[in-house]
Parts: sequence; structure tokens; C-alpha cells
Amino acid sequence: MSSQVSDIAMSVAGAIDEDRLWANLMAMAEIGARSDGGVNRQALTREDGDARALLIGWARERGYDVSVDAAANLFIQRRGREAGQPVLIGSHMDSQPAGGRFDGIYGVLAAFETLVALDAASLETRHPVEVVAWTNEEGGRFACGCTGSIAWSGLQPVEDFLGEVGADGVILADALAETLAATPDVPKRSLGGGAIAYIEPHIEQGPVLEAGGLQIAAVTSIQGLRWYRVDIAGSAGHAGTTPMQGREDAFQAALRSVQALNTLMDDPADTVRFTVGRINVEPNSPNTIPSSASFTIDFRHPDADVLADLGGRVERCVVEAAAPCGVTVTETSTMAPAMFPEPVVAQIEASAGALGFGVTRLPSGAFHDALFASKACPSGMIFIPCRGGLSHHPDEYATPFDCAAGARVLAATVAELAGAAPR
Amino acid sequence: MSSQVSDIAMSVAGAIDEDRLWANLMAMAEIGARSDGGVNRQALTREDGDARALLIGWARERGYDVSVDAAANLFIQRRGREAGQPVLIGSHMDSQPAGGRFDGIYGVLAAFETLVALDAASLETRHPVEVVAWTNEEGGRFACGCTGSIAWSGLQPVEDFLGEVGADGVILADALAETLAATPDVPKRSLGGGAIAYIEPHIEQGPVLEAGGLQIAAVTSIQGLRWYRVDIAGSAGHAGTTPMQGREDAFQAALRSVQALNTLMDDPADTVRFTVGRINVEPNSPNTIPSSASFTIDFRHPDADVLADLGGRVERCVVEAAAPCGVTVTETSTMAPAMFPEPVVAQIEASAGALGFGVTRLPSGAFHDALFASKACPSGMIFIPCRGGLSHHPDEYATPFDCAAGARVLAATVAELAGAAPR
Repeated sequence: MSSQVSDIAMSVAGAIDEDRLWANLMAMAEIGARSDGGVNRQALTREDGDARALLIGWARERGYDVSVDAAANLFIQRRGREAGQPVLIGSHMDSQPAGGRFDGIYGVLAAFETLVALDAASLETRHPVEVVAWTNEEGGRFACGCTGSIAWSGLQPVEDFLGEVGADGVILADALAETLAATPDVPKRSLGGGAIAYIEPHIEQGPVLEAGGLQIAAVTSIQGLRWYRVDIAGSAGHAGTTPMQGREDAFQAALRSVQALNTLMDDPADTVRFTVGRINVEPNSPNTIPSSASFTIDFRHPDADVLADLGGRVERCVVEAAAPCGVTVTETSTMAPAMFPEPVVAQIEASAGALGFGVTRLPSGAFHDALFASKACPSGMIFIPCRGGLSHHPDEYATPFDCAAGARVLAATVAELAGAAPR
Repeated sequence: MSSQVSDIAMSVAGAIDEDRLWANLMAMAEIGARSDGGVNRQALTREDGDARALLIGWARERGYDVSVDAAANLFIQRRGREAGQPVLIGSHMDSQPAGGRFDGIYGVLAAFETLVALDAASLETRHPVEVVAWTNEEGGRFACGCTGSIAWSGLQPVEDFLGEVGADGVILADALAETLAATPDVPKRSLGGGAIAYIEPHIEQGPVLEAGGLQIAAVTSIQGLRWYRVDIAGSAGHAGTTPMQGREDAFQAALRSVQALNTLMDDPADTVRFTVGRINVEPNSPNTIPSSASFTIDFRHPDADVLADLGGRVERCVVEAAAPCGVTVTETSTMAPAMFPEPVVAQIEASAGALGFGVTRLPSGAFHDALFASKACPSGMIFIPCRGGLSHHPDEYATPFDCAAGARVLAATVAELAGAAPR
């Protein structure tokens, strides 16, 4: 790897066709289209299958090799001069139930456009370049998100997920079998196998690029997270008759707890992410003192030491604040941060700079398939701006220019990583 | 009226039969009995009808006059030497869906036991003594609670309530007609007509009597209330990607609002009642910043001036605390406090004292039919302790001794008010 950007890389970037990429995005947005402008294309549904079929058709028109593995990860390979591990690029095609037209699918189509740009620039590469569409990143239907990339990376066998029951009652094993059966002519391949590198383009899902007037972020890391559920037990009582002194109001205890957590998580550098997104109170009646309250904590940080330190203080903080109410704190999920290798980050940054785009380095606040792929090969991500930082929402939007910019940076980066040269 | 307690009054109190009253309470608790020990006997249901039929049967066995008005308020009169307005005593027979065995029904049966005690003591009264069972106090099925007492007092015509749709989809007019049709032999009477006085025995629904080891409260007033709904508009965002600075987190805004209200409502005398019983957050997802939050305020005080002052400051307090989120504050209900006339309170207090019970004066935190009856005639209430202050709950409990104590105080008070004398 090097951080130079060759004329060849610039020529592939120049062969990216903004109009074709946008037309492909809009064609995919028809599949699972919602009346509000969004997309409902959940993993391993019929709509997911339709999107796969459309992409497979485009790939075959251009003579690329299509294959699928046991986790239904879909691969489209443009061959290199040499066989062996590819430069892997892509993202996912599934959406949230009320999702947008860019999250995930943008990365897959920018990757596909990169293959087409290599054709258009009449270049061959030393290593194969392969588009991947990972299965079930979102976790909206089957809660085990990033199923495909976790299985491909060897972190967990796909069998671990087969019993998962979807929000619609369908078993993951059945949905997976149905999806695979829908494309009987696509060759099966083994799970895994690694890659020279994995690069994932994605909308930022945050406001930083838009606010800074920038087109590109070279993503340095994916922050780690610790999720908790806090259950508080109080005592119900009549709102009119029960004196304030001596009440065990579970909502007031939750309020004191969140205040204490606000103080614990306070960070002048604004790197800590701390969110109470869900709160439920029982009996939730206007004239009854709440007998119980539960809330969630979403705590994220790019530094494993900070995650360990602050996360380790959550329980004591809440227990002290909620007294005299009793508290149970359950850690429901934990994920270590991932640091992307400097050469990959530097290559993306250099490509963006050479192409004249405004570029910065950013950690990723959300997790992505790249978090898991990074355990199996050197990985990186390219962010483009999205309007208002909005994602997981029908109004999610990225401009055609920014979509093409991300694809150009990907194409230039791939040209360097895969060893592009004239035919 | 006088605050003396005559030998005759003491003799009626002495004729109250603790075992009979308890047996009647337990017989009524069979109607709508829940497997958890509670009662589900909602207004104008078949169970309510069964309870009415049982009471009517007991009344006829003893030769009392039964009648019913257009609001299905049920009256059982023991005649006096003179016709004209009665001394009215009672409460309601309907329960919450997951209610207890004492709330409401205790007052009706203590009143009925008073009629029986007058018989047992071989006394006549100058004025009629009349038991009333008001229709739909609880408001659990038909949200317009205290329907019967409001209509009887002339505060609103019963026609105002006829279109009310129950939680089960039934129209109040239909349920009312069905209840009236079930007892075709009970004479109809006009709504209203007033009373010399109205006295309502009830469980305290609070912890004060039990904590003080007392049997009786002479209720001085029913506190007024102001209810509000607060709607806060924030901005959704990804919990992992959105910087803390600049977030418009609707739940955090709700938290700041409730903190500010806690300060506003702080009362060292512990007379203010302030409860946030319901809170709902959208989208209520662990990894999404809440875009909206709404919560209720239940604020009560016995002093109309305090209700006006503090209540008038709620909106500004919340608007300032919730910034930069937008806020709408809606006052959903308001009820002025009622002060019971001193002679009635003093008579109850004197009766309890003469009978050797521990007695105190208390405001009522909950509202009751007496709040509305008090607009039509001099009214008062007698509280007895309930275990743990618990009500509106299957575990609601009052001891046989305390139930009898409340009936004895009622009987002695009625003897004075109605002019009891040997036959």
C-alpha cells in the first residue's frame, strides 16, 4: 500500500459516471419503496431478494462472476491478472423498516460503479476486485445485525444465528434458505477466505461533513459501545393522597439516575456519546405514582480504556442516585472499538485530496460491517455527507454529486490497492 | 346541627354490628371477584347490576323504600317522622378494573348498616335517613367519573354524559338503559331534590391514619387539582453519530422540565401534591435520540390561591427548562377545592371522640362524590385507615374493626343530624 495517487487511479476516478450511479440508486429505491419516499427492504425478505436479482442481472450483463456463500453474502467479482484474495468493496442492501434510499445500498452501488469504471478506463488489475453485499446488517427484522460480515470474518459460525426469530415470526434459517433458493443458478462459495483489504463507502449518518462543507471523511475507527438496561422498582400510590415525603416514585428515581449519568458522562471534548433513548414507566397513569421505571443506556467511545472506566461506574452511579428505590443494571451488549490501519486511512485521505474534495478524518459513531471485516483483513471506510445527518428515516438523502465523489475516492483507492494498469 | 353527642347517638353507634357489616362487605366482594383477591365491578356492567340487586333485596327484607333516578343513582330510604329532605349517606358501588373490596362499597354498606342500627336501637328519626349508591364514580369504564353525583347536584344534566363511549365500546346511554331495565319494579324518582346533609364514609386511600394508629379522620376538605399534559418536540438522531453538543434530545428536555417543576413544587409543609405519572418518548428506541416526549402533571392543593399561583407558573417553568426544544403545555383538567362546613366536620370529630376512637382532621387527597354533593347540600366525609394506604388495587384492605368504627361514627352523626328519638 502507498498513499500516492497515480494517474491511473485518477483516470478510474474520472470514469465514475454520476448519472449512472444515481440511476442505479433510484432503481434500487423502487424495491420496497414506501409512500413517504423511504424504503422498507428488510433482510432476507422478498424485497431483499428482488434487489439481489436486480444486482445479479447488472453484473451478468457486464460479464462479472457472481457467487453467494452460506450466509447469503452476495459477491460480484471482476477478475484480476492473478487469482487469490480480492480487494473487497461494498456494504449491505437491507434497510430499516422505515429506512432511507442510501444507508447500505449506496456502498454496494458505489462499489459496483467502481467495477464499471475500471472497464470504462480499459484497465486491468493485479488482484481481483470484488463487490460484496452483506446479509442482514440492520438487525431490524432479525435482531442479530451484521450477520453476514460476522460469519464471513469467522467471529461466529452462521449456525449461531439460524434459530433467530424475526420480528415477523419467521425463523432466520427459513428466510435464509428461501433467499438462497431464489437464485439456484448462482454458484455457492465457501464462507470467508479473507481479502487484501475491505473498503466500505457509506453515508455519514451524522452532521459533521455537511456542517463543514466537506465531501469525504477517511474513517479512522469505529467506536465501541456498551448498552445497559436499568430497571427501577418503586411503590405505586395515589397521586392525590400520598404525601411527597416517603414516596418511592420510580420515575423520579429514574430522573435522578439520568442526572447522575449526565454528570458522569460529561465530556468537554464531546467524544463520549451517551443516550437514554427508551424509557417505560408503569402503570403510566397520570394519577398514580410510578411503581416501576426502566430505561436504556447507549454509551459509546472510540477508546477501549474510557469504555472500561466510565462503563464500569454506571451501576454504582445509578444505584446511589435511585435510592431508596431498588435498581437492577443489566449490560445488554458490548462491542470493542476498531481502529482502521493507518495505510488504508491515509490512502483514502490522499485519494480524496488528489481529487480536490474537501476531506477530514472522522471516527464512525455507528457500527458497520467494516467493524467485523476488520477482524479478518485490513479495512477502511469512506463517508459522504447526508442531509441533516439524518439516517434510518424516509427523508435520508445524499446529493448525486456527493454520491459520485465517494465512488471516485473508492475507485482511486481500489486502483492503488488492487494494482490497476492498462490492458 | 350541634357537636354534642347524645346518649341516643351513642346507642345507635353501639347497635352497629361489626360481623354483619363485614359479612355484607364480603358478600359484595363476591360480585366481580378477581382471582387475585380484588374486584372488577365497573359502572353499569352486569356485575354492577348484580350488586344493585343484592342491595335492593336486603333493603326490601327490612322494609325500606327503594327508588332510582335517571342517572341510575340508587336510593334506600328509612322513613322519618316528617317527610321532606333526608339525611343522605353512602358512596358508590362501582370499582376500578383491578380494584379492591372496600373503595366505594364500604361507604354504601356502612350507610346501610346505619339504617339497620337505627332499627336495632328501636329509634325513629325526625328526617328520613337515606342510603345512596352513586353511579360511575370511578370513571374507569366511562371516563366521566362521578356521573351520578354531578347529575344529582345539578352541576351538569345527565344528558351531557349519555354519548360517552366506554373503554369496552359501549355507549353510556345504552349501559344506563340496560341497568335501569334490569330492575323494572324499582320506582323512578326525579333527579336531585337536595338533602339536609350528605355524609360519605370511605377508606382513606393514603397512609396517614394507619401511620398514626388512628381509626377516624373527620375530612375537612377535598383538595383541588390542576392536570396538565406537556408535549416536547426535539430532533431525532443516531445515538452513536450525533455529537452531544447541539442535540435536541426531547427526553433530556423532559428531565430538565421535571427537575424545574420539582423545585417549583417543593413544599416543606408537604401539602403540595405533584406527580408525573405518565411519560412517553418517541421513537423509544435504545439507539435513537428521542424526537418527542410527553408527560403528565398531576398537581393538587387544598388552597385555591396556591393552585392558582403555582399552577400559573407551570408553563413558563417548563418552557424555560426544555429549551432549545419546543414545548406545548395543555391544562387537561381543573377542579376547585371544596371546604366542608365546620359544623359537619365538628360533629364527625365529636362523634369519633365520644366513641373513644383516635381521630384527626384531614383533607382528602382524592376526589369523591362528596365533592359534587357539597355543591347541593352541607357535606362531609369520614375516613377509616386502609392497609399501607393502598387503594385501586386488589390488595386494598381495611380491618373489620376499623370498618365498624367508621360505621359507628356515621351512625352517631346521623342520629344527631336526623333527630333520632325513641319510638
